[in-house]
Amino acid sequence: MILSDHYIADEPYYRPVGDEITLFEAAYAMRLPVMLKGPTGCGKTRFIEHMAWKLNKPIVTVACHEDMTASDLVGRFLLDANGTIWHDGPLCLAVRHGAICYLDEIVEARQDTTVVIHPLTDERRILPLEKKGELVRAHAGFHLVISYNPGYQSILKDLKESTKQRFCAIEFGYPEAEVEAEIVAHEAGIGPDAAALLVTIGERSRNLRGHGLAEGASTRMLIHAGQLLKHGIQLEAACRIALILPITDDTDLRGALCAAVAACV
Amino acid sequence: MILSDHYIADEPYYRPVGDEITLFEAAYAMRLPVMLKGPTGCGKTRFIEHMAWKLNKPIVTVACHEDMTASDLVGRFLLDANGTIWHDGPLCLAVRHGAICYLDEIVEARQDTTVVIHPLTDERRILPLEKKGELVRAHAGFHLVISYNPGYQSILKDLKESTKQRFCAIEFGYPEAEVEAEIVAHEAGIGPDAAALLVTIGERSRNLRGHGLAEGASTRMLIHAGQLLKHGIQLEAACRIALILPITDDTDLRGALCAAVAACV
Amino acid sequence: MILSDHYIADEPYYRPVGDEITLFEAAYAMRLPVMLKGPTGCGKTRFIEHMAWKLNKPIVTVACHEDMTASDLVGRFLLDANGTIWHDGPLCLAVRHGAICYLDEIVEARQDTTVVIHPLTDERRILPLEKKGELVRAHAGFHLVISYNPGYQSILKDLKESTKQRFCAIEFGYPEAEVEAEIVAHEAGIGPDAAALLVTIGERSRNLRGHGLAEGASTRMLIHAGQLLKHGIQLEAACRIALILPITDDTDLRGALCAAVAACV
Amino acid sequence: MILSDHYIADEPYYRPVGDEITLFEAAYAMRLPVMLKGPTGCGKTRFIEHMAWKLNKPIVTVACHEDMTASDLVGRFLLDANGTIWHDGPLCLAVRHGAICYLDEIVEARQDTTVVIHPLTDERRILPLEKKGELVRAHAGFHLVISYNPGYQSILKDLKESTKQRFCAIEFGYPEAEVEAEIVAHEAGIGPDAAALLVTIGERSRNLRGHGLAEGASTRMLIHAGQLLKHGIQLEAACRIALILPITDDTDLRGALCAAVAACV
Amino acid sequence: MILSDHYIADEPYYRPVGDEITLFEAAYAMRLPVMLKGPTGCGKTRFIEHMAWKLNKPIVTVACHEDMTASDLVGRFLLDANGTIWHDGPLCLAVRHGAICYLDEIVEARQDTTVVIHPLTDERRILPLEKKGELVRAHAGFHLVISYNPGYQSILKDLKESTKQRFCAIEFGYPEAEVEAEIVAHEAGIGPDAAALLVTIGERSRNLRGHGLAEGASTRMLIHAGQLLKHGIQLEAACRIALILPITDDTDLRGALCAAVAACV
Amino acid sequence: MILSDHYIADEPYYRPVGDEITLFEAAYAMRLPVMLKGPTGCGKTRFIEHMAWKLNKPIVTVACHEDMTASDLVGRFLLDANGTIWHDGPLCLAVRHGAICYLDEIVEARQDTTVVIHPLTDERRILPLEKKGELVRAHAGFHLVISYNPGYQSILKDLKESTKQRFCAIEFGYPEAEVEAEIVAHEAGIGPDAAALLVTIGERSRNLRGHGLAEGASTRMLIHAGQLLKHGIQLEAACRIALILPITDDTDLRGALCAAVAACV
Repeated sequence: MILSDHYIADEPYYRPVGDEITLFEAAYAMRLPVMLKGPTGCGKTRFIEHMAWKLNKPIVTVACHEDMTASDLVGRFLLDANGTIWHDGPLCLAVRHGAICYLDEIVEARQDTTVVIHPLTDERRILPLEKKGELVRAHAGFHLVISYNPGYQSILKDLKESTKQRFCAIEFGYPEAEVEAEIVAHEAGIGPDAAALLVTIGERSRNLRGHGLAEGASTRMLIHAGQLLKHGIQLEAACRIALILPITDDTDLRGALCAAVAACV
Repeated sequence: MILSDHYIADEPYYRPVGDEITLFEAAYAMRLPVMLKGPTGCGKTRFIEHMAWKLNKPIVTVACHEDMTASDLVGRFLLDANGTIWHDGPLCLAVRHGAICYLDEIVEARQDTTVVIHPLTDERRILPLEKKGELVRAHAGFHLVISYNPGYQSILKDLKESTKQRFCAIEFGYPEAEVEAEIVAHEAGIGPDAAALLVTIGERSRNLRGHGLAEGASTRMLIHAGQLLKHGIQLEAACRIALILPITDDTDLRGALCAAVAACV
Repeated sequence: MILSDHYIADEPYYRPVGDEITLFEAAYAMRLPVMLKGPTGCGKTRFIEHMAWKLNKPIVTVACHEDMTASDLVGRFLLDANGTIWHDGPLCLAVRHGAICYLDEIVEARQDTTVVIHPLTDERRILPLEKKGELVRAHAGFHLVISYNPGYQSILKDLKESTKQRFCAIEFGYPEAEVEAEIVAHEAGIGPDAAALLVTIGERSRNLRGHGLAEGASTRMLIHAGQLLKHGIQLEAACRIALILPITDDTDLRGALCAAVAACV
Repeated sequence: MILSDHYIADEPYYRPVGDEITLFEAAYAMRLPVMLKGPTGCGKTRFIEHMAWKLNKPIVTVACHEDMTASDLVGRFLLDANGTIWHDGPLCLAVRHGAICYLDEIVEARQDTTVVIHPLTDERRILPLEKKGELVRAHAGFHLVISYNPGYQSILKDLKESTKQRFCAIEFGYPEAEVEAEIVAHEAGIGPDAAALLVTIGERSRNLRGHGLAEGASTRMLIHAGQLLKHGIQLEAACRIALILPITDDTDLRGALCAAVAACV
Repeated sequence: MILSDHYIADEPYYRPVGDEITLFEAAYAMRLPVMLKGPTGCGKTRFIEHMAWKLNKPIVTVACHEDMTASDLVGRFLLDANGTIWHDGPLCLAVRHGAICYLDEIVEARQDTTVVIHPLTDERRILPLEKKGELVRAHAGFHLVISYNPGYQSILKDLKESTKQRFCAIEFGYPEAEVEAEIVAHEAGIGPDAAALLVTIGERSRNLRGHGLAEGASTRMLIHAGQLLKHGIQLEAACRIALILPITDDTDLRGALCAAVAACV
Repeated sequence: MILSDHYIADEPYYRPVGDEITLFEAAYAMRLPVMLKGPTGCGKTRFIEHMAWKLNKPIVTVACHEDMTASDLVGRFLLDANGTIWHDGPLCLAVRHGAICYLDEIVEARQDTTVVIHPLTDERRILPLEKKGELVRAHAGFHLVISYNPGYQSILKDLKESTKQRFCAIEFGYPEAEVEAEIVAHEAGIGPDAAALLVTIGERSRNLRGHGLAEGASTRMLIHAGQLLKHGIQLEAACRIALILPITDDTDLRGALCAAVAACV
């Protein structure tokens, strides 16, 4: 079956933090396109994989980047023994076969990508394959979801108003301390105390945001540190390589972060 | 039949707001190229689909973007088992077979696109296929329509004077409150009171335009909120994900918009 | 016959405004390349089509743009069942078969286009096909004509001195009021009074040039308004969609132009 | 015979103005690469065609431009029925078969072009075809000549020192009045008085150089005016279209140039 | 066996300077992606080759650069006698067959490269081959390692936060004098005294860093000087060509460095 | 035999000016990559050709430029009757067959070229052919040499530190007067007095460096002047076309240089 390997077989662990599941289900029911907003490493990808599993739908994920062309999304002609034949791109596959199409960090893509999705996001729900001369009408099950990290946008690189207005937005942030500790403990396989300790360190690093640090330690990074702890690495070393060295080269910031770790031991 | 899937089968809902239908029909009768001007989500695409249905003509829609080349519009050679064969692009198909060609947001395209349409917009009504060495004379039924959002243009990206002067322009805006409520009620399938409430919220958001908000909530967004209402989502949540979160990340503006919603409940 | 569909079958209407026909015929007789200078919509294209008809010569028109390559003009290899075969581009066709080649708005093209024509514009009259290794000597009937709108040039985009000096220049402007009314009446099929009225409105809009308006209404736009009048549209509406909305989004300028129309009713 | 159509059959008219023929012959005898320096339209191309005729050598002329690649000069693989086969570019043909290769306005080309000629301009006299894996040793008769207009260079676009130092330079300017009149009379087929008149006008226009005029009228333009005179066009009209309109759009400069013409009548 | 020539046959000499081997083994055990940070020539490449040997794993090394595309990493279609067939790129090979993939100086690559690795660096461990329509799930043995030189980054060219946060970081610097002398002696095959002398010179050059010198002499350069010594070149000459001339053209800095060498003789 | 036409058959004339031959032989013996530094026309290319002859090794020379891609160096797939087949580029040929690879003016190339050579310049001595999926281990005889003109570098275009540190550097300058006269006399075939005169003129032009002249006359240019002398051209004319006109268009500098020549007659 086409897209059969795009189903999520096992329930991905997801700990809800608000009404995001209800809102997504409503938007999905009306097939309103959805934009997941939030910082890196806070669980947007996990959420959409969870929803795909919950709704029992195949999901086609595309990591967008500035060299991606509309053809990478839509499809292209390839040369065969008998001449050129058309190969559907990931967006086109999702449109034809009724999958969720998840365009990760769409703002990184060039404008042609964002414009290509316009006719899919209003009542027309069509994908014109201009190079092939075909007008693909979306399968009833097709649903479009994009992610968007508000911290990354600049004047030069942002979604156009005419694109933004086509989406409902669900917002994500780092969870409350208690919830985040629960997540870290589950994902890294460590005890609640160690997890709580890591969350405290993570929150201190997030307080340095705007004081020289572009972003604090994400939930993902706390899980990394937890995994190293579980493997037997000491807390200071685990935090150093998982939380501090990757995000800053500034001596003062490193000192402040190390002190934050030391204060927790 | 060629372009047979480009006819609009069912009458698209369109609520006229002025003399736009008469003016379009006059321009169409003389085959004067038409430019639809107006902000995003105010109904330009719906209007042209309605006119195509009303005139019983096939319509070829192209969403323009800055990576679209003249070949994407006009056509190109593709490799076949017996060598290269020519494939008409969407503009060329419309020219040969007498369709309406609707170039959406043409100002996003590169200059080669806009220059390609010049010989189609004066008395010559020809499309030179330079790569193929063919001079296509337009079918009597061919009509060219473009859309143009005045709020988007900059010095770097605008139509050339020599392009603008080739078009008659019909202008669109957000409809009067009463008319807009009628549209929202029809499209979202909600009652007149809920629709009127959403229109009031929409107008308040439009008043913030120029005070930090690039654009207010469009008619399209009000319909999204209405659809969520109909699905059982509460007004505040529906407005938050459909009207507020998609268009601004600014805390103050979000506060102002939430207050506007709260005042209407 | 090659280029047989590039003859102008019926005399294109052209109302001379000075000695331009005599000057063109002299330059043509000596095969001196000709540059037609003047603003958009003043009749340069009509003039050259008229001359092609008068001299009974095929005319190959190329609308230049910044993505046009020298290969688009000269020719390229295309893949056939037996390998690559050469296809002459429009310039090369005109050179081989003795047509007028009209390069419209050549200043829009990249430099490779303008340099490609150099050896055709002096006594050598050759077109080297470097990719094919062929040196095409121009047919005795070949004549090169370009158009150039002085209002568009900037430091970044202008013809090189070494290109300009290869051409004789014939200048065009908007005709005298009486002549222009005659043209508008003929082309739109309306009476002399209505045409005179439109010309008066056109002149007023041209007076606003430099006061916020990039260009005033061209003769072409007056004809558009006339055609709408003839179709039964009222003067104000016809002027609004044909003369005002296409060229400005500025509220004050629109007001001034509407007042100019109202004053004429 | 290869390059047989690159011989100059008939003696091109050339009126020497100094020792340029002796100097060129000496550089040619030692196969020292030669750079012809001088403004546009002063006879550099005619000189090199004359020398090719005098030395009875084939000449391969390439008009350089900024989109020309090294492959355009050197050669490339093209697809044949049996796969790709190599096609020599114009420079490679000249190198193999001992022609003069004349690279016109080489400074317009991209750096890859200018670097490609380096190994041909020192004692090695080789052309490495890197894409083909062949090292072509130059035929004994191969000679490299380039043209260079000092008025065009800018910081962004100039020959590299390491390129300049590989050439002997011969300089050209507009000839003395008497000589120039002789040339104009010969080339336009007009009498000495008319030619002298045109040369006087040309000199006056050159005096305006630096006062708003990029360059004055070249010898080539005076010949154009002479040809129009011969065809029966009046002096004022001939000068207007051949000398004034092509080079300036400035009203004051046009006035000054017209006055210069009127003063000569 | 696929990738059989990517095993490191002989133990590469590596002198540990801290707990880097333990940390790497922990990260490898959890398959956490690793970032090796440190200046040029300090042994990052040697370290990863040593670890590949120690873990008995094939290693696929890619030197990243700004013209490398995602296809260079992931794979592409190539033309065969029977049409196009897919060729896995180096990253894809490593993913399928469970090798270490070492992306050297990844920050030099374009964004599409860095985004391509995202789905490989979280729990999904997948590589979507969008052009082929295949979703490759990583072999259990696959491990991703990148290098990163903090001294090279600028605002224009740095890893995105969302990329950095996906890695654990291990930091490298120049070793302590005693250790470095041991390394130089071993690698160049010279005695401990000569090696100690070279290390002293190296440290002096590193003190000039920030006083006009971009970087001091790396361990690699000291080994070069040692190799020249071993071959019989005098100390001054060996230091001149291996340590001084390659890194600065400034007369004063050269003087200071020469004096530093002379002081050691 | 592969690369058989890349041996230097006859001893190229080279007059040593210091210990450069000894230093090069030592670096070659250890296979340390070598960077030849010095101004244009001072003999770097002649030196490396001499060394290739002396060591009886084939030499593959590549003139680098900013449009050269890594594929131009490494190799690419070309289409054959049976599909694509791989063609080694010049660097790959040298690596496989043990030649000297001389990358002339490598700093002109794009970064991908310089990064491609990294794994060849350390102990690994490998060339990964990523597009082909092959890891070429260098032949024992392979040696990498690059040239570098310190006067040309700018902030935008310089070798990266991580590249520079991989090379030993040998520096070249213009030789002492006596030695340079010996070279000029030998190469141009003129007597010692005439050669000494040219060298004096050359030194005077070099004194103008930094006073408006980018570089003075190189040894190469003095040889050009000598060759013209030998052919019978007078000293002033020979110096004018070989030494003065090619390097400056400034009237004052030309005057100063002419005076320097006149003073020597």
